[in-house]
Amino acid sequence: MALVLEMDGIVQVFPLRGIPRVKPGDDLLELLTRSLEESGIALQDSDVVVITQKVVSKAEGRIVKIEDVRPRKKARLLAEELGKDPRTVQVILQESKRIVRKGHGVLIMETRHGFVCANAGIDQSNVEEGYLTLLPEDPDRSARRIRRKLEAATGKRLAVVITDTFGRPWRDGQIDVAIGCSGLAPLEDLVGTTDPYGHTLRVTQPAIVDEIASASELVMRKHSLTPAAVVRGLSYKRSDAGVRSIIRERRTDLFK
Amino acid sequence: MALVLEMDGIVQVFPLRGIPRVKPGDDLLELLTRSLEESGIALQDSDVVVITQKVVSKAEGRIVKIEDVRPRKKARLLAEELGKDPRTVQVILQESKRIVRKGHGVLIMETRHGFVCANAGIDQSNVEEGYLTLLPEDPDRSARRIRRKLEAATGKRLAVVITDTFGRPWRDGQIDVAIGCSGLAPLEDLVGTTDPYGHTLRVTQPAIVDEIASASELVMRKHSLTPAAVVRGLSYKRSDAGVRSIIRERRTDLFK
Repeated sequence: MALVLEMDGIVQVFPLRGIPRVKPGDDLLELLTRSLEESGIALQDSDVVVITQKVVSKAEGRIVKIEDVRPRKKARLLAEELGKDPRTVQVILQESKRIVRKGHGVLIMETRHGFVCANAGIDQSNVEEGYLTLLPEDPDRSARRIRRKLEAATGKRLAVVITDTFGRPWRDGQIDVAIGCSGLAPLEDLVGTTDPYGHTLRVTQPAIVDEIASASELVMRKHSLTPAAVVRGLSYKRSDAGVRSIIRERRTDLFK
Repeated sequence: MALVLEMDGIVQVFPLRGIPRVKPGDDLLELLTRSLEESGIALQDSDVVVITQKVVSKAEGRIVKIEDVRPRKKARLLAEELGKDPRTVQVILQESKRIVRKGHGVLIMETRHGFVCANAGIDQSNVEEGYLTLLPEDPDRSARRIRRKLEAATGKRLAVVITDTFGRPWRDGQIDVAIGCSGLAPLEDLVGTTDPYGHTLRVTQPAIVDEIASASELVMRKHSLTPAAVVRGLSYKRSDAGVRSIIRERRTDLFK
């Protein structure tokens, strides 16, 4: 361990370790509290607690036993077309509003929340054999519940972000993005302000909630059983608008 | 100032302040070195130095005086259709391979590098009145040059990432992404490895170069004349593949 100076403006991302395999009904507050203690982190005002979707989904019981799923005709046809398991496709369809794109063995879906992602966010990694995890029903609500409990337990003003790993068009690889948040405004709105050269910024709205998600992934690698992180040193506007508020309306989206 | 413990696994993002308005021909090494000194940061092995495109473009002379541009017919028609300045549209077309989408006053272009972004990355913010900045001609090469100079000056093994601010489909707001890099592999390749439950990960390739870009934006806000940052505490694979290597091939992209 080495000592470093905490400078004005520095942002730090701490991994939260020691969170065990989560099961339906597990108390996330208890798991987070114990992990914070073990990691030697005392939460401070304005800290952002970031949690991966998988942990939240499992605690909320959003898992499906694959052998219990009865695929319908649409799912069976689609599964055959794409070389996928028909039961998995059945669950993907149930969790979605529509198919955005299909091909190359991939189903890009618009989920019932309005997220556009592969397989409606359903997958088999980091869960017991034979099960699928679904996204939380309302990730903003999940974030709000966790934030309120953490705030009550610590007496600090906090924000909570729930993340998932999404691919994106035009670039290989995935990044973590926010699917739910509470306690911070997802966008920093700079529209109408001026840059140092005097130009009025017309469209600048940094999506800090997604940048926080990506920053956290840098300490939460897939293998290390590190499904949570704390981001410290950010200034942000307090809000409960949620990630829901930055889903682009279909009529103004050129890629819907 | 407060003292904090540097824990194993923590990632820190330091803003680099005190970089003045950059002009064509300015020596970025000199500006970065002075800023590092003023910010009290001594570079360490594995540090990632992140620089915004605007600064690199200006130092490389990638700016255009708007009144010198003669718009052709295609640019004039497109400008009228979208309510844009015909000279700006002329420059956008010159820097692009093709129009990906247009509408709502927006031109989504595929740049000559293969990036898909609004206006081919050309804009008027943070530059003198009457000028446009273009993206660097070869941002990976720009990153490589800066990395080599910084490594020679410090004796440390470093990585350099050049970032820009891109919008994205389906979500409001923008995030910073990498447009050039040197010294680190842009993707961490987990394909074929297993998760803690024993599943083989089939598609997981975290785009750490883009997550580094987004993490850095959290300390480089648009107004603060902070066009650079240092990210410390990451482990990554050394590589000179560049951002170029993660541009998805058109035939495998469902959104081209």
